Amino acid sequence: MTPPEPHGATVPEPDLRHHGDTEVGAGLADFAVNVRAGTPPPWLAALLRDAVADVAAYPDPAAARLAVARRHGRADGEVLLTAGAAEAFVLLARVLEPQHAVVVHPQFTEPEAALRAAGHRVERVVLGKDFVLDPADVPDAADLVMIGNPTNPTSVLHPASAVAALARPGRTVVVDEAFMDCVPGEPESLAGRLPAGVVVLRSLTKTWGLAGLRAGYVLGPAALVARLAEAQPLWAVSTPALVAIEACSAPAAVAEADAWAAGMGAERDRLAAELTARGLYVVPEARASFLCLRVPDALGIRALLRQRGIAVRRGDTFPGLGPDWLRVAVRDRAANGALLAALADLGI
Amino acid sequence: MTPPEPHGATVPEPDLRHHGDTEVGAGLADFAVNVRAGTPPPWLAALLRDAVADVAAYPDPAAARLAVARRHGRADGEVLLTAGAAEAFVLLARVLEPQHAVVVHPQFTEPEAALRAAGHRVERVVLGKDFVLDPADVPDAADLVMIGNPTNPTSVLHPASAVAALARPGRTVVVDEAFMDCVPGEPESLAGRLPAGVVVLRSLTKTWGLAGLRAGYVLGPAALVARLAEAQPLWAVSTPALVAIEACSAPAAVAEADAWAAGMGAERDRLAAELTARGLYVVPEARASFLCLRVPDALGIRALLRQRGIAVRRGDTFPGLGPDWLRVAVRDRAANGALLAALADLGI
Repeated sequence: MTPPEPHGATVPEPDLRHHGDTEVGAGLADFAVNVRAGTPPPWLAALLRDAVADVAAYPDPAAARLAVARRHGRADGEVLLTAGAAEAFVLLARVLEPQHAVVVHPQFTEPEAALRAAGHRVERVVLGKDFVLDPADVPDAADLVMIGNPTNPTSVLHPASAVAALARPGRTVVVDEAFMDCVPGEPESLAGRLPAGVVVLRSLTKTWGLAGLRAGYVLGPAALVARLAEAQPLWAVSTPALVAIEACSAPAAVAEADAWAAGMGAERDRLAAELTARGLYVVPEARASFLCLRVPDALGIRALLRQRGIAVRRGDTFPGLGPDWLRVAVRDRAANGALLAALADLGI
Repeated sequence: MTPPEPHGATVPEPDLRHHGDTEVGAGLADFAVNVRAGTPPPWLAALLRDAVADVAAYPDPAAARLAVARRHGRADGEVLLTAGAAEAFVLLARVLEPQHAVVVHPQFTEPEAALRAAGHRVERVVLGKDFVLDPADVPDAADLVMIGNPTNPTSVLHPASAVAALARPGRTVVVDEAFMDCVPGEPESLAGRLPAGVVVLRSLTKTWGLAGLRAGYVLGPAALVARLAEAQPLWAVSTPALVAIEACSAPAAVAEADAWAAGMGAERDRLAAELTARGLYVVPEARASFLCLRVPDALGIRALLRQRGIAVRRGDTFPGLGPDWLRVAVRDRAANGALLAALADLGI
C-alpha cells in the first residue's frame, strides 16, 4: 500500500491536552495507553511496598541521582530527577527563553503544550514521508528544538546521528527518550553521549509501569541542570519514585528491560506484519511499544472497537496526523490476537 | 523573662533554602523536623501498600479532589491538589504577577524563595513583640501577602479575623495552613470560609507523616485555581499521594487528627512551661507541633545537643530570627524528657 502523505493545514486544531489515559474505560482491554502490561514486576512492587515505611521522612534524591548518573555514564551534576517527563517539559519551558521554538511533530503533545503555557510561540515542523527525520526540515533560526526518539505516536526511531545533527551553537535540542528502553541496547540513545547543546529526557513510566508514581529525569549540561533545579519545587520527586528510579537504574534491571524489549519487539513486528497484510498502512520501522496506523474513518473504527471491549488511542489529537489515524499499544500475543479478531469482525 | 525583640537588619542574610530535614542524622533523636512521630499510622500505611497495585495507571485526581472539597465545604473547582505545599508556592509565584509582594516573617522560607526564583522582588515584614500579627504591619500597597498560620517556626496562631483583615480589593492573601491541623477544631482556619482574595494552602505532610509522598492542596477562587492548574505539570500528584489525600480527608481521619492534636497540645504546653521555668524565652501561645525558643549561643547549644544524640533545628536561617534561636519539635513525654535532661546537662 502506498504510504499516505501526512495531513496538512486543513485539519482542525488538535486538542494537545488529550491523552490516552482518558480513553481507557472499565472493562476495556487497554490498547490506548503505552504502559507495559503486568507492571510493575513483583520485585519492584515489593520494593515500593517496603518504601511506605519511609514516607514520613522528606525525600532524599542523592542515591537515585547517583544511580542514574552511573547507568548512563554521566556526572551527578548532569542529572535532574523529575516528577515524570511531564515536569521536565514544564521546567524546560520556564527556564529556557527561546526566540524561535520548534516542535517536531507528530509527537507527544505535552512539550508544545508546556511551551505555550509558558507563553512561548511554537513552530510546528511536521515530518514528511514515513515520519523520518531530515535535519534540514528544521529551520536554521530555531534556537530550541523538541523531538521524540523513538517517537510517540509514530514509533519511528531516528538515528542518533540525525538527532545529533540538529545541534548547533546557540540551539538547545531536547530529545524525549521516554520510550528508548523499548529498543534493545538503545543504540540510538544520546543519553550516554550528550553532544553539546543536547538535553535528553527519560521516563520510567512505560517499561516499568510507574505512570502513577511520576518518575523521570533530565540529562543535560550541568549549568542547565542547575537552572532547572532552581526552578523546580522543593522535594519534587517522592520517596517511592526515588526508590523506583534507583532500583530501575541498576544493571540487572536494565538487563531485564532489555530482555522484555526484545520479546515485545518480536510481537510488535508480527502484529505490524499482520495489519499490513490486511491492507492497512502501518508506519514502517516501528521500534517502540506501539504502532501508528492509518485506517479510513478511524474514529468510527475506534467506536466500534470500544463496543467490542477494546480501547485504542485516537490519532487525530496529534498535530500532523488526522481523523484517519490510530495508535495501538503492543500487548502479548493473546491480547493482540483478540484485537486482530475484532478488526476482522469489522471487515479489516 | 522579658521577651526579647526580634533581630533586625544587622543579621546576615539567612539561607532560605536551608530546611530541617538536612539537620537530622543517623542515630539522632529528631527534634529538627516537624513531622509527627510514629507516622503514617498503620491503617494509612496499609492503604499505601495496597496502592502499589495501581501505580501502572496514570493518576486520576477526581476522587481525592472531591474528598478535599467535602472536607472543607468547598466547591470542586476551588481545589487544586499539589505535590506538597512546596509545589503550590512555585505555582503561585509563577501565575501571580505581584507588583509589591510581601512575605510576613518569621515563617517557612519557601514562599519567599519561590517568589524570588520566579523573578519577583519581595518585601519582608517582620512581626513585632511575640510575633503577633498586626494587619497594619503590612503596607497598604502590597498586592500579594504570604503568611503562615499557625506559623512555622514561631508556633503562633493568628486569629482568623486578623488574617482575613489583610484581604482587600486588588490583593491576594496566601495563608499557609500546613500546620493548622495541629489546632483541635481548627477555629482560626480560613479553609472553609475563603474570604474574597484569600488563598489557603494545606499539607498532609506533618500530621500524617507523608513528607516523602508530596501531598497537599490549594483552596482558592475557582478562576485562580484554573490558572494554577494550567501552569501545573500534567499528572502532578502521584497515585499514592492521591490515595492519602482522599483517605485523610474522610471524617474519621479528621477526627483522628483532632484527637492527636489535643494530646500533642497538652504535651507541648507542658514542655513549654518547663523550658520557660528554666529561664528560656519560649515564644508564647504556641499552637503548632513545635516550639520556638531563644537561648544565647543557640548554634553552640545545638552542636552540644548533637553530641548528645539530639537534633534540633537552627533558627538563624529564618528571616526575623537570628543566631540565638532554635526550633524544637514536640515529641512524646519520654522523648521530650530526654531533651530536657540533655539541656539540664548543659546547664539549661
